[in-house]
Amino acid sequence: MIRQLIEKTRSVRRYRENEGIQEEELRELIDLARLGGSARNGQSLKYMIITELKLCTRIFNLLKWAGYLKDWPGPDQGERPVAYIICLLDRKLCKGPEREAYFDLGIASQNLLLGAAEKGIYGCRIASFSRDINKILYLDVNYKVMLVVALGYPAEKVVLEKVKANGDIRYWRDKEGVHHVPKRSLDDILVPVRKLPFE
Amino acid sequence: MIRQLIEKTRSVRRYRENEGIQEEELRELIDLARLGGSARNGQSLKYMIITELKLCTRIFNLLKWAGYLKDWPGPDQGERPVAYIICLLDRKLCKGPEREAYFDLGIASQNLLLGAAEKGIYGCRIASFSRDINKILYLDVNYKVMLVVALGYPAEKVVLEKVKANGDIRYWRDKEGVHHVPKRSLDDILVPVRKLPFE
Repeated sequence: MIRQLIEKTRSVRRYRENEGIQEEELRELIDLARLGGSARNGQSLKYMIITELKLCTRIFNLLKWAGYLKDWPGPDQGERPVAYIICLLDRKLCKGPEREAYFDLGIASQNLLLGAAEKGIYGCRIASFSRDINKILYLDVNYKVMLVVALGYPAEKVVLEKVKANGDIRYWRDKEGVHHVPKRSLDDILVPVRKLPFE
Repeated sequence: MIRQLIEKTRSVRRYRENEGIQEEELRELIDLARLGGSARNGQSLKYMIITELKLCTRIFNLLKWAGYLKDWPGPDQGERPVAYIICLLDRKLCKGPEREAYFDLGIASQNLLLGAAEKGIYGCRIASFSRDINKILYLDVNYKVMLVVALGYPAEKVVLEKVKANGDIRYWRDKEGVHHVPKRSLDDILVPVRKLPFE
């Protein structure tokens, strides 16, 4: 059951822009992020919900999309995200090294996107954006924007592929607009336990 | 549906040591980790399954448990993990900064533990361990142990609590042995969109 949802939970970068997401649904997704574990139980992540069109547009203009799709600058009008969840590190709450916040962010954003996929909502975790985002959001200095999660109802299909023998992991889009994501196989990522001959 | 599973997926540190986990089940859990998203789609994480008792004991002796339970050195004999999944960074595959690997690790380990909880198996993500683990596992130099996931069938109860007004996020164990984990509320972690008065 969870396997199906995990398989379904893929990064989607084009959305049906005429279908909005209710604020209450976004709150529910953040509540799932909240329920994830956290290094030292520190819970130093906070979240901002953006649905207002003008602010969405401003944020959109700061984002870099899909590093491997060199000819594609990002979704066209009509296919843009209808909401963003901005994931913030609250430095006042962060007790450990910052890598722990990135670890927590992985857990939290996965919970969030699994919950979204269950509702038919898909997203893209964007870590590449202009630092002007701090100004646009009038953020206090204790906050650091770690991740922007773009969200919407999907207008593209994403399929998983096996990584080929050359090891190329770059995703690509075919002529029909289907997005293909190469994944390593289970055997590729399992490291066998090594035993010395005298054991 | 996913919410229930996310709520259930708590860190558990005492296990029924007489109930083993099949290797095939552990492979299924790693397959869920594999299916998570990854920064740049880099997929630089690999996994090692440890179930053999002698090796489990060696690993157990390198781990530090539950930082906030000062009087508890870790699970007693009879309550120890029956398996470990060792999460490795393969430096040969890592193209970006290491924080991205920690982000991926959060995603992957959350998938893994959600899948485990669905099977009634619980775990604890342990990032605090002796570097001797590299020797014990005879790891090639391109591997870095990022996380040890201890696993087993649970022998303790874990409940979520609200963080009190003093902001203390340290978990505690009560006289009945129940483990309590304070969580910030949704309102605590939502940062409102700030608008300047002239907008």
